[in-house]
Amino acid sequence: MTEEIAISEVYNAARVLDGVVRHTRIIGPTKLSSETQVYLKPENLQHTGAFKLRGAYYKISQLTPEEKERGVIACSAGNHAQGVAYGATRNGIKSLICLPAGAPISKIEATKRLGAEVCLVPGVYDDAYERAVQLQQEKGYVMIHPFDDVKVIAGQGTIGLEILEEMPDVEAIVVPIGGGGLIAGIAFAVKSLKPNVKVYGVQAAGAPSMAESVSKGERIHLDSVSTVADGISVKEPGVNTFEMCQRYVDEIVTVSEDEIAAAILALIEQQKLVSEGAGAVSVAAVMFDKLPIKGKKTVCVVSGGNIDVTSLSRVITRGLVKSGRNTTITLDLRDVPGQLSRACAVIGENGGNILSVFHERNVAGTPIASALLRIEMETRNADHIAQIRKALTEAGFELVG
Amino acid sequence: MTEEIAISEVYNAARVLDGVVRHTRIIGPTKLSSETQVYLKPENLQHTGAFKLRGAYYKISQLTPEEKERGVIACSAGNHAQGVAYGATRNGIKSLICLPAGAPISKIEATKRLGAEVCLVPGVYDDAYERAVQLQQEKGYVMIHPFDDVKVIAGQGTIGLEILEEMPDVEAIVVPIGGGGLIAGIAFAVKSLKPNVKVYGVQAAGAPSMAESVSKGERIHLDSVSTVADGISVKEPGVNTFEMCQRYVDEIVTVSEDEIAAAILALIEQQKLVSEGAGAVSVAAVMFDKLPIKGKKTVCVVSGGNIDVTSLSRVITRGLVKSGRNTTITLDLRDVPGQLSRACAVIGENGGNILSVFHERNVAGTPIASALLRIEMETRNADHIAQIRKALTEAGFELVG
Repeated sequence: MTEEIAISEVYNAARVLDGVVRHTRIIGPTKLSSETQVYLKPENLQHTGAFKLRGAYYKISQLTPEEKERGVIACSAGNHAQGVAYGATRNGIKSLICLPAGAPISKIEATKRLGAEVCLVPGVYDDAYERAVQLQQEKGYVMIHPFDDVKVIAGQGTIGLEILEEMPDVEAIVVPIGGGGLIAGIAFAVKSLKPNVKVYGVQAAGAPSMAESVSKGERIHLDSVSTVADGISVKEPGVNTFEMCQRYVDEIVTVSEDEIAAAILALIEQQKLVSEGAGAVSVAAVMFDKLPIKGKKTVCVVSGGNIDVTSLSRVITRGLVKSGRNTTITLDLRDVPGQLSRACAVIGENGGNILSVFHERNVAGTPIASALLRIEMETRNADHIAQIRKALTEAGFELVG
Repeated sequence: MTEEIAISEVYNAARVLDGVVRHTRIIGPTKLSSETQVYLKPENLQHTGAFKLRGAYYKISQLTPEEKERGVIACSAGNHAQGVAYGATRNGIKSLICLPAGAPISKIEATKRLGAEVCLVPGVYDDAYERAVQLQQEKGYVMIHPFDDVKVIAGQGTIGLEILEEMPDVEAIVVPIGGGGLIAGIAFAVKSLKPNVKVYGVQAAGAPSMAESVSKGERIHLDSVSTVADGISVKEPGVNTFEMCQRYVDEIVTVSEDEIAAAILALIEQQKLVSEGAGAVSVAAVMFDKLPIKGKKTVCVVSGGNIDVTSLSRVITRGLVKSGRNTTITLDLRDVPGQLSRACAVIGENGGNILSVFHERNVAGTPIASALLRIEMETRNADHIAQIRKALTEAGFELVG
């Protein structure tokens, strides 16, 4: 039941996209793996901060004049919205994007800035999608599917062409999977031209719809998905993308939330690149040895960088705590003068850098003559934390957390 | 008294550095300014996360065999340390880097990983520098100056060649200034080849040594410097770099700490690039209209990305506050039940997203029957904050902060 795709279509997409999308340059080699030369294809540096506009723009460019006249519609709370808005505006046609009303202000504003009309729908994604289908039927808009469309897939496939052209001796390519449009396009292009190059897919363990579908040999629908990688939080693969993953993808693995956070942090610290969760799963898979790529020249596609700064702050904090560079210690103080100052002095002498202090008397459940002192501090590593805790204990303080 | 430099030396540096440094590709156009096409030269994506290895590697490569035999020494708590370590190791010679003992663990470790021997000196930078001079005299190492050396300057100048080659119609180049090595090299190369291209320098307002020196016509020494942009926190320009700035740089401006923070945040959100304070001052100058570049095709050099994640977290928070997306409001409540809930309701109805609440009675200096309520919230922009403050006032609350 799937539509056919030909490699000539991918080449045509590359021709159409020339001058429209950024030809992102491969970065590397990196030290993200100790055993493998890992390079990055940084689609987070693409216009709109993600690869999505490739497929959306190409799809829109191939509409008939009559379809273009009608305008396009899409439903998305994320990168697809911006891709469609960009693609439509650059093609000179109108676009309407349905978003759930709770979508982040920043994404709504970004979509508007790219020239789309925005329709905020009360409820969640599914409600917005229903409204989009309804509007499409009522008003005759052309729906642009985020992944299950051969033109969209061909557009994403141009990433595969670029990788082969820039690095002819590449041996493995690692690609994030949500609905599967990105990997379907890349894997099709790469296997058509260089069948020996391995193409691996990565999903978040909290949303493994394609991994489970391929493993079971049939498209499955997950009732719920949950991951920090919201860009690949998809309940069911597409018909076309599922078949193409079965045929062209060598293996699909999953990564945990902590592994994704560690990959985001590593990209920031080591590569100075901001990636969103969905964009970092490929790097997470390599960092945590999920794939048989030892010694292979490998390119990880970092598919997008649209993480809001509040989430970014949280991921950084989580990474700092995980690596022992930030800790919070809670003391139960006898409520006599001088205790706060003494505790701070012990921490300072041991090289802890105090960030915040919360001092509270009258806490239910503690003795009347006591107070809780919670101190957040910067530390060097886990050993340093242990040293400070030991010094506080030796100075007579009671640690309760 | 300055040494001579020839454009042939910059070309020679480019030849030597070919295959050693990354040829970072210009990114853009960006939307960082509404009135100017702003492009970025992302040296934060360079090996070691900063441009410094260009000058250090080239300098080391030009040492005599006898000098190479002796090994090199440098004093730095930052990017120069890693540049020298990388340059020495790649040239197959030994390097010793003196760092103040309080330097961030991450930088010490990075320097060691690049193959340098590290000497931790108790005290501050000046102490480490003294120790380096002493070791140089005792052991015969060759000192690699971070900026005031024509070979080092020639190495940094390769950035100018790359910009002219990749973007022949560039009209203005904006460059961060610390000691002045980077801008001396770029300005010399650019003015030698295309004198009509403007070259502007940017310093942090908290460390304006070159700006003041050029304005006074003589090298001045600042007693103290203080800025988040630690990579350009330099008390005194070099002899060579000062003369070259006088001759080749069109204008030098300064940016505030808040402007630097806003630039770092804009690079993260809009460009998905992590920059350190020193690396972002060029972008800050453009964002805040410090330079006469309206309508000019402009390249900002983002010189480095080595910001530790703790600082990054702080800068993000500060940038959010500056752009009106995070605010803290303090209310003086009459201490009667229901006030906290009413205040939160007003904020919620006006679209503020509460992050933390601090509610305190018994504050000295306030009436006995009152309490302070401090609420931190996410907001959309300055207008949104004003709207929430107005709504609270209209609801009868007394705002004290």
